[in-house]
Amino acid sequence: MSKRTDGRALDEMRPIKITPNFTKHAEGSCLIECGDTKVICTASVEESVPPFLKGSGKGWVTAEYSMLPRATHTRSNRDINKLKLNGRSAEIQRLIGRSLRSVTNLDALGERSITIDCDVIQADGGTRCASITGGFVALVLALAKLRDQGLIRKIPLYSYVAAVSCGIIGNEAHLDLCYTEDSTAAVDSNYVMDDEGNIIEVQGTGEGRPFSKKELDALYALAEKGIKELVKAQKEVVGDLFE
Amino acid sequence: MSKRTDGRALDEMRPIKITPNFTKHAEGSCLIECGDTKVICTASVEESVPPFLKGSGKGWVTAEYSMLPRATHTRSNRDINKLKLNGRSAEIQRLIGRSLRSVTNLDALGERSITIDCDVIQADGGTRCASITGGFVALVLALAKLRDQGLIRKIPLYSYVAAVSCGIIGNEAHLDLCYTEDSTAAVDSNYVMDDEGNIIEVQGTGEGRPFSKKELDALYALAEKGIKELVKAQKEVVGDLFE
Amino acid sequence: MSKRTDGRALDEMRPIKITPNFTKHAEGSCLIECGDTKVICTASVEESVPPFLKGSGKGWVTAEYSMLPRATHTRSNRDINKLKLNGRSAEIQRLIGRSLRSVTNLDALGERSITIDCDVIQADGGTRCASITGGFVALVLALAKLRDQGLIRKIPLYSYVAAVSCGIIGNEAHLDLCYTEDSTAAVDSNYVMDDEGNIIEVQGTGEGRPFSKKELDALYALAEKGIKELVKAQKEVVGDLFE
Amino acid sequence: MSKRTDGRALDEMRPIKITPNFTKHAEGSCLIECGDTKVICTASVEESVPPFLKGSGKGWVTAEYSMLPRATHTRSNRDINKLKLNGRSAEIQRLIGRSLRSVTNLDALGERSITIDCDVIQADGGTRCASITGGFVALVLALAKLRDQGLIRKIPLYSYVAAVSCGIIGNEAHLDLCYTEDSTAAVDSNYVMDDEGNIIEVQGTGEGRPFSKKELDALYALAEKGIKELVKAQKEVVGDLFE
Amino acid sequence: MSKRTDGRALDEMRPIKITPNFTKHAEGSCLIECGDTKVICTASVEESVPPFLKGSGKGWVTAEYSMLPRATHTRSNRDINKLKLNGRSAEIQRLIGRSLRSVTNLDALGERSITIDCDVIQADGGTRCASITGGFVALVLALAKLRDQGLIRKIPLYSYVAAVSCGIIGNEAHLDLCYTEDSTAAVDSNYVMDDEGNIIEVQGTGEGRPFSKKELDALYALAEKGIKELVKAQKEVVGDLFE
Amino acid sequence: MSKRTDGRALDEMRPIKITPNFTKHAEGSCLIECGDTKVICTASVEESVPPFLKGSGKGWVTAEYSMLPRATHTRSNRDINKLKLNGRSAEIQRLIGRSLRSVTNLDALGERSITIDCDVIQADGGTRCASITGGFVALVLALAKLRDQGLIRKIPLYSYVAAVSCGIIGNEAHLDLCYTEDSTAAVDSNYVMDDEGNIIEVQGTGEGRPFSKKELDALYALAEKGIKELVKAQKEVVGDLFE
Repeated sequence: MSKRTDGRALDEMRPIKITPNFTKHAEGSCLIECGDTKVICTASVEESVPPFLKGSGKGWVTAEYSMLPRATHTRSNRDINKLKLNGRSAEIQRLIGRSLRSVTNLDALGERSITIDCDVIQADGGTRCASITGGFVALVLALAKLRDQGLIRKIPLYSYVAAVSCGIIGNEAHLDLCYTEDSTAAVDSNYVMDDEGNIIEVQGTGEGRPFSKKELDALYALAEKGIKELVKAQKEVVGDLFE
Repeated sequence: MSKRTDGRALDEMRPIKITPNFTKHAEGSCLIECGDTKVICTASVEESVPPFLKGSGKGWVTAEYSMLPRATHTRSNRDINKLKLNGRSAEIQRLIGRSLRSVTNLDALGERSITIDCDVIQADGGTRCASITGGFVALVLALAKLRDQGLIRKIPLYSYVAAVSCGIIGNEAHLDLCYTEDSTAAVDSNYVMDDEGNIIEVQGTGEGRPFSKKELDALYALAEKGIKELVKAQKEVVGDLFE
Repeated sequence: MSKRTDGRALDEMRPIKITPNFTKHAEGSCLIECGDTKVICTASVEESVPPFLKGSGKGWVTAEYSMLPRATHTRSNRDINKLKLNGRSAEIQRLIGRSLRSVTNLDALGERSITIDCDVIQADGGTRCASITGGFVALVLALAKLRDQGLIRKIPLYSYVAAVSCGIIGNEAHLDLCYTEDSTAAVDSNYVMDDEGNIIEVQGTGEGRPFSKKELDALYALAEKGIKELVKAQKEVVGDLFE
Repeated sequence: MSKRTDGRALDEMRPIKITPNFTKHAEGSCLIECGDTKVICTASVEESVPPFLKGSGKGWVTAEYSMLPRATHTRSNRDINKLKLNGRSAEIQRLIGRSLRSVTNLDALGERSITIDCDVIQADGGTRCASITGGFVALVLALAKLRDQGLIRKIPLYSYVAAVSCGIIGNEAHLDLCYTEDSTAAVDSNYVMDDEGNIIEVQGTGEGRPFSKKELDALYALAEKGIKELVKAQKEVVGDLFE
Repeated sequence: MSKRTDGRALDEMRPIKITPNFTKHAEGSCLIECGDTKVICTASVEESVPPFLKGSGKGWVTAEYSMLPRATHTRSNRDINKLKLNGRSAEIQRLIGRSLRSVTNLDALGERSITIDCDVIQADGGTRCASITGGFVALVLALAKLRDQGLIRKIPLYSYVAAVSCGIIGNEAHLDLCYTEDSTAAVDSNYVMDDEGNIIEVQGTGEGRPFSKKELDALYALAEKGIKELVKAQKEVVGDLFE
Repeated sequence: MSKRTDGRALDEMRPIKITPNFTKHAEGSCLIECGDTKVICTASVEESVPPFLKGSGKGWVTAEYSMLPRATHTRSNRDINKLKLNGRSAEIQRLIGRSLRSVTNLDALGERSITIDCDVIQADGGTRCASITGGFVALVLALAKLRDQGLIRKIPLYSYVAAVSCGIIGNEAHLDLCYTEDSTAAVDSNYVMDDEGNIIEVQGTGEGRPFSKKELDALYALAEKGIKELVKAQKEVVGDLFE
């Protein structure tokens, strides 16, 4: 098995670090670092829901994703200066929202909304996955606060959720791509999974060439391994809150 | 094997109809009908490329996707009235563009752009898949015109590409979901594949619950069958142009 | 009397074809074809009115007009990409709305709104006129559905309304200009009229030179003839619904 | 013949006052007052043309129209706060531009642009007509300056152009409607004409009911009379510049 | 003491002229002329307040500022064409609003809003200051109308408010800069003050170089003199209304 | 002298911490913490200038300012969702840009641009001042990199620049207001100064009441003291780079 530029094995994750309560105003927050990728995730609770849920008794979880202009190698113009939400951001924040809603009991949440803001302060590949993994931690922290305030009885989550990227470079499957790997990968995929290896969302793209079912299977196997490590890191931070 | 509301078997596609040259101005165009889903696909050639390709000798293929306001059960407001591109449209048109680029030899296309416009005039599930399948036909027709004009030597495509949705309703995998099926599916997926069963893009979402790797495998098997039929329909229309 | 490029006499209309119920979701819809100009017209009913009519007991009819990007010889950028409604579209949709409101008894409609969407899928001159003529058919179909549902007692329309363009090329008045004629006309006009030859709206522009009152009179005479034929085509489609 | 609220005869114009050189920076400017309607018109010269005229040797004349927020009875929100150009303004500024271009020899103007800004500071009906009549004066003044600077040889205008509204209230045709008349008129029309009674643009709308050809004729007769007086007022201001 | 291009002494204001009731629709209005700077100020009353004040019993005063496109030496594009409020305008209208609110008893105003529109029709330096000085006059006139209608008992203002610019050119402090002075000033400041020499807002910028506290003191002394003259001009117009 | 909620003396700054090179992609960056206010400042170099400087040989320094949605007590909507740059942000980023340009020798910088992005990740009063103080550090670091690359000969800065807020609460002047102090201050001011006590920009606002010249003097004295401490903190981080 060949080594990578940063010396990792093909099935090796980058170091994961989650700092809970990173900012003081949000009901829940953390800084998640996956290698050199760093994302501030905050969870903000509002006692109202979007129009389509008014009077339903159900709550809502949604997400917004953005990069600071200089989170990347070259500075990118802010969306507001172009008056357009970046298409990539639009796609990613829909993914984050779907992933976190999928593990939330919206009935038990009650008629309130939680917005997960994922702001990338430094990007080195895998920002959408880090946002989901860190966004989950911020969500748990905010829900624990609601529970402590007696607004909900228990934390209304069905399972943990985390996400990891994996891809095929040359003909070898690699786990947790950094930016330079990601930009040369023939196949790029993102797996969102729960803590039992079930898939919540999978996206696989043949950036450089079509890929076989067998390759898809290999990527799944790597992702399953990576998700286990990510959930372990989440449990170290919020495991006592959410059992 | 249980039957569906429209009497189809679980692995049965809806009727596919592709009308080539549906509009007279575009270099390539078709109307694609997948059951009651109807999409006008046009391919427009421009002798220029986006800034990042200027002077590279390479061409570009991109796509735009939109629904007429009353393509759906209830009228939706036009994007221009909200001054925002619908997030779902943004995501879909990025997918269409990636899928069509993946089979195009951009070097052989030369410094010109082809824009595939996919305008849904009636929606009944699977509009993004119909757009990819029909968009490919419009693309071939436009490339054939460029070849006939001597601007390119041969049609610069590596393979056919088509897309189909499949999902899990209850615990059974279904091929080619119509709208009522799609809105009750526990798992929803879209497969973009070439004519040899290779995957170009896969998106799978656990709308109602997480799903297992085994279920993902079952969906792949259905998709592979559906894509074969779609490519057959494409070949009947453009097979003689593109060999 | 000289012949035209397509062999028509100066006072001859292009073939008119109206396909009712062209799409399945809208309360009323048709595809109208005036020569090579093709417009999808849908009428959508909503049980609410704009703020300025709330509580008035009156209804509202409004229209939106758009061209698919490749309805024309060269592809035009979508409005949403420029974040600006095209000035020409803004002008045309105001005209369509005024024209259709002018024949509608808004009191008898009750507090509900009907939006007429006119989406040009192929343009060859006279798209605004085709939109009014086809939009009227979609409106009648939607009103008939409301009547059949018992929501209104009878179809609340005062008269038929249709529209036709006519212009002066060289010094001769021509009826129903196609695109190539329109682009060389010295004078261009659009007449919106009821089925008794009364004017609902007239717009006349000296594109190439000022024109005399006598020329305006000649254009009116042609328009009157054309409107009769358009109303006849409308009656063939919705005459039994609306008497 | 019945009298009007302000005592005018049916075919009587409101007092017209044109103050040339109303602002000091513009190449041409005036304040035009038609009764209580007051519009500042400025003509700004730029030594460049829109992209579609680059290298053609031809010039361009265009117009922008806007109302100050409190030019009307109730304050209207500024366009920039809604991020949308008012549809009515879009329509009017296209009319002003067409009208002024129609009398300009764009070849003789050379590759430069003149923008006519019409800003309504007080509205009492007929603001689009006042904008055309006053915009023409600003245009002549700017052209005279270009001629005096030796940039053009003579003033490149074919004729005078002015505009007036007339309408039918009850069954009587009225010239030059003020706001209260305009809001009760059954038929409302605007005539743009040259100094010989030729029509440059006519717009007639049956706001309250359809109208007959005979009524259109009556409106034309009034407009012809009104335009003569407007051109007379223009000549008093710029007659010596432009012969 | 050196003289200036227009012959003024260093501590001499330009001629001030305030024409009250300049437009007929607004509850209060004036044209203010400070030398060649001319601003139309209108005050519009609405019987509602922004959401954050609903039910508070308090009123609101806000301002909007804009320049006509050709108020300046070269034509500037309208904000609506760029879809962005000019940053300078955003800054200025916040200043005008703060300044006028600071002298208004919002409790005594009651739950209604007054919007001050300041539209610059000709600019020659000091437009933000003229807007505050003229905006105050429009505000008083509107409040007097409310009092005369019995909607408020007395004019709810604590004091007069006016504004003046002063700057350092070379090393000498100058009062009330015109455009050519402003564009060469090393230090530029704006003082908003009440009629007793108290400061409501001060903004000082070292455009060309940092400046000392002593220079700031010299600018204050000039401003205090200028404000006295501006308040005197205001009193001549609205002094009998507001005592 | 009374104590404050956090126990500080009236003329005491909050703890200042500047972490240089906080992110890895930007040419210069730091995290600045002033009490609980935390701002990421990055400096991005581009080898191009705005159009008005093309060919001038001069460079440009500009700034953008934004808050993360949950930097504050309650979540604020992102600008892109409202399609409007927040008026307060517009004002602040103009101030930061002016302040940093005032100490930069733009001729010596050469035709390149430096954009300072100030993104507030946690707000507790004084964010604009922290942005200027931290933005200066990021600027120095980026300039040092340009110097080390041989692109400029020496760091083209005239002096240090820092900013501090001070205000009057009750009748006492306080240095470096935190959020709760800021929101109750009668007078609020921001001083931007160089390392010799010269003023680069001053803004003072009587939020609650007008204030006297004597009070302005007292605020200046506090600011002068605070700026000295800020410059000391800057020197500890970049003093060896920039002498």
